Amino acid sequence: MTLPRKELFDIPTGMIYLNGNSLGPVPIGVAAAVEKTISEQWANQLVKGWNTCGWYEQPVRVGNKVAKLIGASQGSVVMGDTLSIKVFQSLCAGLAMRPSRKVILSDTGNFPSDLYIAEGLIALKDQGYTLKLEDPETVIDAIDDTVAVVLLTDVDYRTGRKHDMRKLTQKAHSQGAVMIWDLAHSAGALDIKIEQSNCEFAVGCTYKYLNGGPGAPAFIYVRPDLTSTTQPFLSGWMGHKTPFDFEQRFVPAKNIERMRTGTPPVIQLSALEEALKIWDETTMQEVRAASIALGDLFIAEVETRCPQLALLSPRDGSTRGSQVSFAFEHAYAAMQALIANNVVGDFRAPNVMRFGFAPLYIDANDVIKAVDTLKHILDNALWDKPEYKERNRVT
Amino acid sequence: MTLPRKELFDIPTGMIYLNGNSLGPVPIGVAAAVEKTISEQWANQLVKGWNTCGWYEQPVRVGNKVAKLIGASQGSVVMGDTLSIKVFQSLCAGLAMRPSRKVILSDTGNFPSDLYIAEGLIALKDQGYTLKLEDPETVIDAIDDTVAVVLLTDVDYRTGRKHDMRKLTQKAHSQGAVMIWDLAHSAGALDIKIEQSNCEFAVGCTYKYLNGGPGAPAFIYVRPDLTSTTQPFLSGWMGHKTPFDFEQRFVPAKNIERMRTGTPPVIQLSALEEALKIWDETTMQEVRAASIALGDLFIAEVETRCPQLALLSPRDGSTRGSQVSFAFEHAYAAMQALIANNVVGDFRAPNVMRFGFAPLYIDANDVIKAVDTLKHILDNALWDKPEYKERNRVT
Repeated sequence: MTLPRKELFDIPTGMIYLNGNSLGPVPIGVAAAVEKTISEQWANQLVKGWNTCGWYEQPVRVGNKVAKLIGASQGSVVMGDTLSIKVFQSLCAGLAMRPSRKVILSDTGNFPSDLYIAEGLIALKDQGYTLKLEDPETVIDAIDDTVAVVLLTDVDYRTGRKHDMRKLTQKAHSQGAVMIWDLAHSAGALDIKIEQSNCEFAVGCTYKYLNGGPGAPAFIYVRPDLTSTTQPFLSGWMGHKTPFDFEQRFVPAKNIERMRTGTPPVIQLSALEEALKIWDETTMQEVRAASIALGDLFIAEVETRCPQLALLSPRDGSTRGSQVSFAFEHAYAAMQALIANNVVGDFRAPNVMRFGFAPLYIDANDVIKAVDTLKHILDNALWDKPEYKERNRVT
Repeated sequence: MTLPRKELFDIPTGMIYLNGNSLGPVPIGVAAAVEKTISEQWANQLVKGWNTCGWYEQPVRVGNKVAKLIGASQGSVVMGDTLSIKVFQSLCAGLAMRPSRKVILSDTGNFPSDLYIAEGLIALKDQGYTLKLEDPETVIDAIDDTVAVVLLTDVDYRTGRKHDMRKLTQKAHSQGAVMIWDLAHSAGALDIKIEQSNCEFAVGCTYKYLNGGPGAPAFIYVRPDLTSTTQPFLSGWMGHKTPFDFEQRFVPAKNIERMRTGTPPVIQLSALEEALKIWDETTMQEVRAASIALGDLFIAEVETRCPQLALLSPRDGSTRGSQVSFAFEHAYAAMQALIANNVVGDFRAPNVMRFGFAPLYIDANDVIKAVDTLKHILDNALWDKPEYKERNRVT
């Protein structure tokens, strides 16, 4: 297919939505699919829906669709819970694989929730574990044979800086560490080959570039050679080998299903399952190439026409995710003005303007128009006018 | 209001639904509420919906509604995750409150997932913890000063046997143990006074008698004096004091919000929030009284007309949940036949027929009709005919 495919999304007329890196827009068909789940499946089948409507298999069925988008084998991905819970579960499993080591290594570019979850797990285990944080640029040098697990997010949520997954995983393995990748800002945007990276675990969310909706469930990938042996730890009944035998002892499923926990969120999953149909019509290579081109164009336009802004993201598209961030003194006010003018990016403290480029619904015209609007705002900005400065003076 | 209120539910015509203890039916209004969340809120507000549509506050807002239904103070309940995850979180917090003790005590009537979760946590902590299981009738005698946490489900999922929450909690506290109640089969059916029981934690699901839909999120209650100090352990960013400051260290919220984990399931929560409106029109006392009457009637009718079945549930309604179970040699086949005749209960191995009575949509006429159908099935049963026995003979 040719990109963009704006007709596949329900986006307000006139809006240029550059925030799919936070929450993707509504794919056409999702409302009807969810309505069907509620008014046909749930209403008519009631509890039988677990069998007759395929609800029980849904976390694996949808997981297999996500697997295709991140370069994973069928049977290596399952959906459920939130990304934070899946980070917890993968960390538990990773630490258990290296019982004599006590260090979790991450970097300061990781999303804070991943770090919070590691902190919580360390407090829970209460056995002298530590979380070591390095700069993203130097984290590779900090991987040594004391490290049990390396936990990194592929794409930095602030700057869009992308890690070299293969190189970092190789270094982790050379030192005997387990590698966990968080694909929150990668899945659905970058041409990820998770299995080729050889990492043990990967996790991610589906409400950004996979357009699954607010609170869409997370996924966990387990390297195929480990799916029948990895310890689930969050061993809820849906991960049991035979959950409906209601045995008193937990016996994990012999496959990726062991990483399921409790009863899955059927309604959210039905929204996501519909949203993923978009990917039957395109390839991740095509999307990734278009996203780099859009990011490059945006950088060139902003740097030429809005020199007040300073690029925070990598200039080289191959080391950049699907977003571009600029630092600007008046970032918060400028982003508010952009949003008021229907160009929706977002702001991250203290001074970051962040713009995501999802080529499924953003094209070069949108990029030019977004920069037109930005330039107009900068040219007419209150913050450069004496009376504004006077009014906002700290007294 | 007078019960039932069948017009508040979308139940297939002619169906007598006696399985609300597994999955409640669709409340009228849920489909439209979810449609609004998708096609108005998500579609038009996109990421701004977290603020403009109240998504961010939803877990606490809905938690406050659940709080009213279980006799808890405002600000002591929050929604999120699955029941299994909330069991895990409460167990972690409970064990941390009794660091010198190593026993988790439960009973054989607990739902298996609760036991599996305890097993997983014990393996994770790897510090000599044990899970001790007693019979429901004698578990109170097993509470001694070695027990860190007592984890019990109020109503037995198989028999409907109800525990004496106050008495068990008192015994736990007299021995210095922390008490966790699982209200899976109680919330929305029984007139629970959780705060009066004085337990430290309670958890439950919302897809049974609260009609939140398949995969509806769970809740966790923390006793009000503990909400600002309990350790969340599953410390995702939504439990942070200031999540949008994106600090690298976790600082828990000063209230029940610390028990939030990751990004909440907005679509599922909007279904649940709408479903809970039903409770503005009735009281739990009214529902509980009607449920006991329906259960008593069902027992009397079955015992009179279908003597092949043997009562498994308590005869005394005050010690019974909102379900009635019978043992029967041909339970599986009989339940299949009932379902085929639009009387929907369910089967639990090896020989249990389980019937739930939710007075919001079930009345005495339904109970009589259900027993009529059961009697007809028994009177015409294949399993009493020689040719059936021959065909099904184990060879």
